[in-house]
Amino acid sequence: MKIAIAQLNFHIGDFEGNVDKMTKAVESAKKEKADIICFSELATCGYPARDFLDFDDFIGLCDQAIQKLTALTADIAIVVGSPSRNPVPEGKDLYNSAYFLANKKVQHVQHKALLPTYDVFDEYRYFEPANEFQLVTYKDKKIALTVCEDIWNIGNENPLYTVCPLDEVIDQKPDFVINVSASPFTYQHAQDRVDIVKANLKRYGVPMFYVNHVGAQTELVFDGGSLVGAPNGNIHAEMPFFEEALQYFDLEDVVNNEKEKVQEKDKISLIHDALVLGIKDYFQKLGFKKTILGLSGGIDSAVTAVLAARALGKDNVRCILMPSQYSSDHSVNDARALASNLGIQYDIMPISSVYQSYSELLDPHFFGTTPNVTEENIQARIRGMLLMAMSNKFGNIVLNTSNKSEMAVGYGTLYGDMCGGISVLGDVYKTEVFALAKFINKDKEVIPENSITKPPSAELRPDQKDSDSLPPYDILDDILYEYIENTKGPDEIIEMGYNAKLVKRILRMVNINEFKRYQTAPVLRVSRKAFGMGRRLPIVGKYLS
Amino acid sequence: MKIAIAQLNFHIGDFEGNVDKMTKAVESAKKEKADIICFSELATCGYPARDFLDFDDFIGLCDQAIQKLTALTADIAIVVGSPSRNPVPEGKDLYNSAYFLANKKVQHVQHKALLPTYDVFDEYRYFEPANEFQLVTYKDKKIALTVCEDIWNIGNENPLYTVCPLDEVIDQKPDFVINVSASPFTYQHAQDRVDIVKANLKRYGVPMFYVNHVGAQTELVFDGGSLVGAPNGNIHAEMPFFEEALQYFDLEDVVNNEKEKVQEKDKISLIHDALVLGIKDYFQKLGFKKTILGLSGGIDSAVTAVLAARALGKDNVRCILMPSQYSSDHSVNDARALASNLGIQYDIMPISSVYQSYSELLDPHFFGTTPNVTEENIQARIRGMLLMAMSNKFGNIVLNTSNKSEMAVGYGTLYGDMCGGISVLGDVYKTEVFALAKFINKDKEVIPENSITKPPSAELRPDQKDSDSLPPYDILDDILYEYIENTKGPDEIIEMGYNAKLVKRILRMVNINEFKRYQTAPVLRVSRKAFGMGRRLPIVGKYLS
Repeated sequence: MKIAIAQLNFHIGDFEGNVDKMTKAVESAKKEKADIICFSELATCGYPARDFLDFDDFIGLCDQAIQKLTALTADIAIVVGSPSRNPVPEGKDLYNSAYFLANKKVQHVQHKALLPTYDVFDEYRYFEPANEFQLVTYKDKKIALTVCEDIWNIGNENPLYTVCPLDEVIDQKPDFVINVSASPFTYQHAQDRVDIVKANLKRYGVPMFYVNHVGAQTELVFDGGSLVGAPNGNIHAEMPFFEEALQYFDLEDVVNNEKEKVQEKDKISLIHDALVLGIKDYFQKLGFKKTILGLSGGIDSAVTAVLAARALGKDNVRCILMPSQYSSDHSVNDARALASNLGIQYDIMPISSVYQSYSELLDPHFFGTTPNVTEENIQARIRGMLLMAMSNKFGNIVLNTSNKSEMAVGYGTLYGDMCGGISVLGDVYKTEVFALAKFINKDKEVIPENSITKPPSAELRPDQKDSDSLPPYDILDDILYEYIENTKGPDEIIEMGYNAKLVKRILRMVNINEFKRYQTAPVLRVSRKAFGMGRRLPIVGKYLS
Repeated sequence: MKIAIAQLNFHIGDFEGNVDKMTKAVESAKKEKADIICFSELATCGYPARDFLDFDDFIGLCDQAIQKLTALTADIAIVVGSPSRNPVPEGKDLYNSAYFLANKKVQHVQHKALLPTYDVFDEYRYFEPANEFQLVTYKDKKIALTVCEDIWNIGNENPLYTVCPLDEVIDQKPDFVINVSASPFTYQHAQDRVDIVKANLKRYGVPMFYVNHVGAQTELVFDGGSLVGAPNGNIHAEMPFFEEALQYFDLEDVVNNEKEKVQEKDKISLIHDALVLGIKDYFQKLGFKKTILGLSGGIDSAVTAVLAARALGKDNVRCILMPSQYSSDHSVNDARALASNLGIQYDIMPISSVYQSYSELLDPHFFGTTPNVTEENIQARIRGMLLMAMSNKFGNIVLNTSNKSEMAVGYGTLYGDMCGGISVLGDVYKTEVFALAKFINKDKEVIPENSITKPPSAELRPDQKDSDSLPPYDILDDILYEYIENTKGPDEIIEMGYNAKLVKRILRMVNINEFKRYQTAPVLRVSRKAFGMGRRLPIVGKYLS
């Protein structure tokens, strides 16, 4: 039996495009004489469709897509994810289902039992969990269908769910398992995915075909890396990361596997590729080609510009240098050098005249006050405004260049440098931004060395340095990681050996700046805990603040 | 038996404050010789604590609060909501529980079974549903404890859950039911609450004490209105809306009830009071006193200013008039008249000089282009920036004045008029803003009549009117309501008799402007479907766009 895995980039709500893409894959698979072709979770409507799932009209379009795919199955079977309606009045109105289509009919619909509802996932918001599990038989093979999370509840001392769907059907001796997934990227997750498939292979001893979505949907990047697991416990095949692929596997080869085949997984290289795909798909799926961003001469905007040029092409990236009286000469020079290395267009717009006009208007109202963060914010907001004006005039999207460390502690100006259509580095700590810069420069100097080595500064007042108000970034990032990713409390972090006063100050900064993060751009997610949809906190909360 | 209902305003994460507040209520109740005092759902930590619940440290503080309350129960019983830990490794780590504390011990912990996970609710994100239901006996009375949603799964043809907790215990003949709730306001919800309690009374014939939270937590306003239901089906008592209250009820009186007592529920009056409380608590819980907002002379900023003055006191409201060359004389006059009617401070900052300086900087880059929305956005952003500068300098919070209709169709400028700490009218359609203005003016003219009667205009280009690009607001708002609140698709709305082309244009405007709403201020929620945490859509979605 020949099984095709189609790891494709679907677009939420683009039913015509998604069905077209699947139809082409089905045609190829027919030519290759595949018996079954597998598409990913909720492939008809795209994942995550979020509250579009509340619209009956939208579900009707999913059903139409399933009908069109069913019509293609005269001589091939299709496994595809799509929402299905709950026929009984009790419970949620939908299931998250894997359809098995063959002989121009829906042969079986297996619903997802384990509905991830944590971090970026909201599945119980929409779906009723399955409580029935059945195999489907096709060409004399018994097949267990599972949907993503259904295979993730094993090998963990603190399992999130009280059932394991495969436990319910394993006694019926399935010949293999198909898992349709939409499992988004984190820099640890490709390895997690290998580990969980191996844990399933070990527990059940049955081949597994795991098909993942690839492509980005706003903040979530899906990295592909679909897997075929052999009954001996080896990974028989791991499909490419960050690109579409259609591959064929002979069931017998899988059963007789002798060797594990997996790809290398380097954290920074994966983050780099995820961010490039994240930018590319954000623009492509919104129908935009061009971006604009501010270049400060610092490392964050430099890395963002490089990633943008790699995602969109250098001709689609435009940079603006917006020096003030506090900008150092080297900043402008470093920014110019970067633009020239990348071959991207740049313009210079000194902000002092606009700043002057604000001052004249505000000075009478500020009478008797002393300069403070207000004046720094004005500079940052003038820059944000100039970028937005260029964006509005020329139809390009502003890229946000804030990093995760500064977003965490509120070291940024709302409506200023926190503006933009999408945040490229908002889930990348400053220490990781440095690692990205070195990765980018590994073969030749793309980012001017000086942007990497000089002490980080916002340059919003004379001789300002980040280190004036923040601890060194390696310490800051470690504390932030323990709090944000590991949800440790202050006592636990202090026990690890960090200065108590510093820990309390940092956690307080994180919490009192929730209002800023609420209003900033969506953040491309690369870690287990990114700011945005996966981290939900009350602005008025008084905890650690 | 005497039962006290304490309808109190808790603050998320303020354990000390919350326990203090409960301790004072317990002391009063002891003086009144109450047998039991009831507090609302998750009263220890505040509702919704959201991802603070992921922190073990935070749960430890909840447990400490329960210990402190337990110590008070030598001669009174306390019913109080708090998270509790799931003792088994399988499933989520927490339950959402009602504690029954008496004789200085935890007598019973009843977990919530029905976990709302829709709209603004994310409970299955944190909690495992209960699967055991037990009565607690106190002073010879058998009491059924339920938590909020637990009583909401009846009287509906399409129930959201497959179980009803009270069905599981009714055979044990409870003497009464206590329900601890944190049920947020919508303008229909106070009536829904009466209806659901009556449906429970009808089905079970047992007295019910329903204690609700009161007070706002960022976007969610909790309106109180705690209820006592009599076994004859009458509402025995409905506690006040939008204020704290501690009331006592004799069980025998409830059992012998002869008359229903409920308060009048006027939509616009309820919205008015909810918004005033929403503003008040947002400031109070963040530790701020003063606000600043832009007054345009239009109705939205006028209504916002009135609500702000009522919430914070007139001395804590400062307004800025920021006319441009396109502002009409009447706008400035209407704004001045409003400020004078309210007795609030106002300043005038004409924006033309700053606009001029932006033009000079941008003109060379805009060479060969024609004026478009860019120039309008620059004006809106200058205003936003001036407000933010004043906010930064004087430590007051900017109130956002956008209404729901314009937020829906993207008729606003990101980082311009869409800025602010909290959006007051973002869940109030323009037609409802007019109704609010009339309600405010019912006894005397507070808002200048001209602000109400003149045709709405953004005044960002010569002779601009909202009606140039939008249909009349009564039609627009009806279409938006069917799409946003009722999740109807285009065909269903067109079938209702609306122009097909118009419907498609409006729905497209809503969907393509998701990116703006993503980055705007949190919105005080007054309807069943507000923008913000309760309406989650993918920015890159292609549905109806």
